[in-house]
Amino acid sequence: MEISKIGSFGLRDHIVAALEPAKQEGTLLSLVDDAALFIAPQGEQNLVVNRLLLEGIHFDLVYFPLQYLGFKAITSAVAEIIGMGGTPRQATLCVGLSRRFQVEDVDILMLGVKDALALYGVDLVNLEVTSSYTGLTVAVTCIGSVAEGEALRKSTAKKNDLICVTGNVGAAYMGLQLLIREKVAYDGTEEFQPKFDGREYILSRQMKPIARLDILRQLQAEGVRPSAMTNITDGLASDLMQLCHASGVGARIYEQRLPIDHETVGMAEDFSLSPTLVALNGGEDYELLFTVPLGLKDIVESIEDIRQIGFITDQEDGIRLVSSGGSETSITAQGFNREE
Amino acid sequence: MEISKIGSFGLRDHIVAALEPAKQEGTLLSLVDDAALFIAPQGEQNLVVNRLLLEGIHFDLVYFPLQYLGFKAITSAVAEIIGMGGTPRQATLCVGLSRRFQVEDVDILMLGVKDALALYGVDLVNLEVTSSYTGLTVAVTCIGSVAEGEALRKSTAKKNDLICVTGNVGAAYMGLQLLIREKVAYDGTEEFQPKFDGREYILSRQMKPIARLDILRQLQAEGVRPSAMTNITDGLASDLMQLCHASGVGARIYEQRLPIDHETVGMAEDFSLSPTLVALNGGEDYELLFTVPLGLKDIVESIEDIRQIGFITDQEDGIRLVSSGGSETSITAQGFNREE
Repeated sequence: MEISKIGSFGLRDHIVAALEPAKQEGTLLSLVDDAALFIAPQGEQNLVVNRLLLEGIHFDLVYFPLQYLGFKAITSAVAEIIGMGGTPRQATLCVGLSRRFQVEDVDILMLGVKDALALYGVDLVNLEVTSSYTGLTVAVTCIGSVAEGEALRKSTAKKNDLICVTGNVGAAYMGLQLLIREKVAYDGTEEFQPKFDGREYILSRQMKPIARLDILRQLQAEGVRPSAMTNITDGLASDLMQLCHASGVGARIYEQRLPIDHETVGMAEDFSLSPTLVALNGGEDYELLFTVPLGLKDIVESIEDIRQIGFITDQEDGIRLVSSGGSETSITAQGFNREE
Repeated sequence: MEISKIGSFGLRDHIVAALEPAKQEGTLLSLVDDAALFIAPQGEQNLVVNRLLLEGIHFDLVYFPLQYLGFKAITSAVAEIIGMGGTPRQATLCVGLSRRFQVEDVDILMLGVKDALALYGVDLVNLEVTSSYTGLTVAVTCIGSVAEGEALRKSTAKKNDLICVTGNVGAAYMGLQLLIREKVAYDGTEEFQPKFDGREYILSRQMKPIARLDILRQLQAEGVRPSAMTNITDGLASDLMQLCHASGVGARIYEQRLPIDHETVGMAEDFSLSPTLVALNGGEDYELLFTVPLGLKDIVESIEDIRQIGFITDQEDGIRLVSSGGSETSITAQGFNREE
């Protein structure tokens, strides 16, 4: 159905009617008035972050299905709240749609949005639907909360702290390369089948990344308070550099400790790329990078899916990678995905 | 300077360096970490709203200067917080920029943003700068707060309540028509001078609309709590219809009571438009539409820049306009500006 049939108000009502009721106790008014009303739980402070996803820059609908885009948009904002140690609670969404989109397209986009809202336990409290001159635009704001004084910052890492990474890195980037390759390979015939066999994991990391609320909960359950934390968006190297810069420290990380999935390694080799560089600079990992005091080494080691990759040094020692062969290099690279 | 010279991170740092320090007590961490941290004042609840402004849909940079766009983007979100009776406190901003924009363009955009932040006393707490494939995209989120239980809603107007409007309506729409006419009239010669003489007011209403925090403060100072309220964005008729629909009531408003500036009337006549229809359907007024119990009539009358335009009726009586001649018509029109 053409969106013009029901208008942007009608489309908004159509979307709202298909949403689950708000689940957070702190969501007081949502989707009904000029603005949404909310409160943080007693003793908690509020977090807010916004993200903007633009067609042609952050996604290409030729190979990126709308449903996954909806999921990823919510994840990209939720991950920043988790990166501060917060619990995501409310989200707002603005969608700009050009004339080539129909009501059914919006329904598919919203399937992914709703999937992500359910997964993270987040309420959509404000929604704007508008026309767009060119393509699809998605703006997401996520609100969360964190106990007073417990927000985890980039600026508080200390010398000798262990540097930890959750999951693995570089997979989302190789998933993107695979998608782009198959897009290029597509010859326009109906018989064309993209070659994704055995690459499902890296594809899922690109298309349906999941923010690590699970790890945050485990750290809290074990009583582990990271000395510093950030979400890995720009690539491990870039986010580590930002953390070190904010904390006024240096870092030494070990190539052989970098968590890289075997599909990432295989795909990197197919593309004649160094798996290490992919892991350092890929970006869009939505994993957590954090530091803990040395004394917490054993507890952290007991939590699944956390890898200790190095330790914090003095600022004047720089940010260095110790290669598997024992040589050292400075980490200066920017993420491959950096839009400049 | 090309943005690529300093990169999107460099541009973000450049913008942040030129911002005033945060002024709100409740702004705890801004512009430094994955997300911003804030609290509402003791006993207050949080409000949040987001707006998306897209080039070619919400603004045309041929006649809409970047500085005013920055101001208007902040105003458009702030106005929704005020429309709920809230005090705007924090804002987040995402800017998507295509290659035709330079660092200096962003500086000009930010002049308007900063002007608005200062006027409303709002802190910019989160900023994202990204590339755009086509044109300029601005996403703004505003956070505010309101005393517990004091949020002003659309859904609580009662029969016999007075219907009030602040300032005047239709001016921003006629300002837009003037801008469009002069754009069309522009003949490409250097000697061309747009004809804006004597139309400064309607131009200012289109280009630099100011949300009515002043009126909200006056109502609070006089102890007037509106029974219902909303911000006028879509046009008086559309916003009145939404308020009536949410409250389950009807309305009767009087043509001769509609607040219309003489420049709006003059410009409407130039375009052979009915000033009444322009006032009802223009949109982008950023004025307040609210209702008060009859008993508050005298107090409301004593506050400058508030006009009583009619009263709330039973739902079955519909939403009706009483013309200057005494005849009645149903109000059904949508705003001129509605993007469908």
